[in-house]
Amino acid sequence: MKKYTACLLAVTAFTLAAPASAQFAKAEDAVKYRQSAMFVMQQNFGRVAGMAAGKIPFDAKVAGDSAAVAEFMSKLPWAGFGPGTDKPESKAKPEIWANKAKFDDNARKMEAEMAKLAVAAKSGNLDSIKVAVSATGGACKSCHDDFRAK
Amino acid sequence: MKKYTACLLAVTAFTLAAPASAQFAKAEDAVKYRQSAMFVMQQNFGRVAGMAAGKIPFDAKVAGDSAAVAEFMSKLPWAGFGPGTDKPESKAKPEIWANKAKFDDNARKMEAEMAKLAVAAKSGNLDSIKVAVSATGGACKSCHDDFRAK
Repeated sequence: MKKYTACLLAVTAFTLAAPASAQFAKAEDAVKYRQSAMFVMQQNFGRVAGMAAGKIPFDAKVAGDSAAVAEFMSKLPWAGFGPGTDKPESKAKPEIWANKAKFDDNARKMEAEMAKLAVAAKSGNLDSIKVAVSATGGACKSCHDDFRAK
Repeated sequence: MKKYTACLLAVTAFTLAAPASAQFAKAEDAVKYRQSAMFVMQQNFGRVAGMAAGKIPFDAKVAGDSAAVAEFMSKLPWAGFGPGTDKPESKAKPEIWANKAKFDDNARKMEAEMAKLAVAAKSGNLDSIKVAVSATGGACKSCHDDFRAK
């Protein structure tokens, strides 16, 4: 019984500590992690979007490589939105944790659009890239409108 | 001849403009990009290293996933060390651009060690992970010693 209680206490302590310690040493790291992943994604997506908009000369190889990185990065930020990461202050609205299911659904939608963009960019067809950039940008905006402070 | 000269001028202009415009809109973005990529890599590598050191409970699945992300990230920072990105001020020493071949060689070595770590982590063998973490950490340190300000 004593052993069981000790074990239970240990598990409880871990559970209580988990939001902070499961993946990141502290909440600050989680916030910096999601911001860093988003920035790397955005820089790669932005390059492809710039080509789609005719602001950057189209280079199929660079577009394909950049979209592949953006697709990989699209899966990473979410680990940084765990419980207890609403502080320190960032552009992340409290609505994220109040409506986590909706936020997660938005995340999956963006990932899906980014994956389609990677396929389009790999094909090298600029018209397909334009369609996919528009859909992906829409997924970014939709989530930012609801969950990201201006 | 006139056409050739015009073409040559265009190529020269692109080459001159390339350091700033090829991959990043401005040097600040390049610096933030390499720092962001390094941070995402470090957080994932650090988790596996923590397990290897017994500071974090060993979880083979988490170790494998984290090492795979760290391996992917290990290829990204270098795009942010292009010509003209020695400013704005960061921990990157001027020696990077003065000894670019040596820096690049260090980068390839770290990538190679991180790839080995990903293989070890996927195998789930903690002893192999410990060996690979040590080698990877050594590659990080060696480059930081020469090219990163304290």
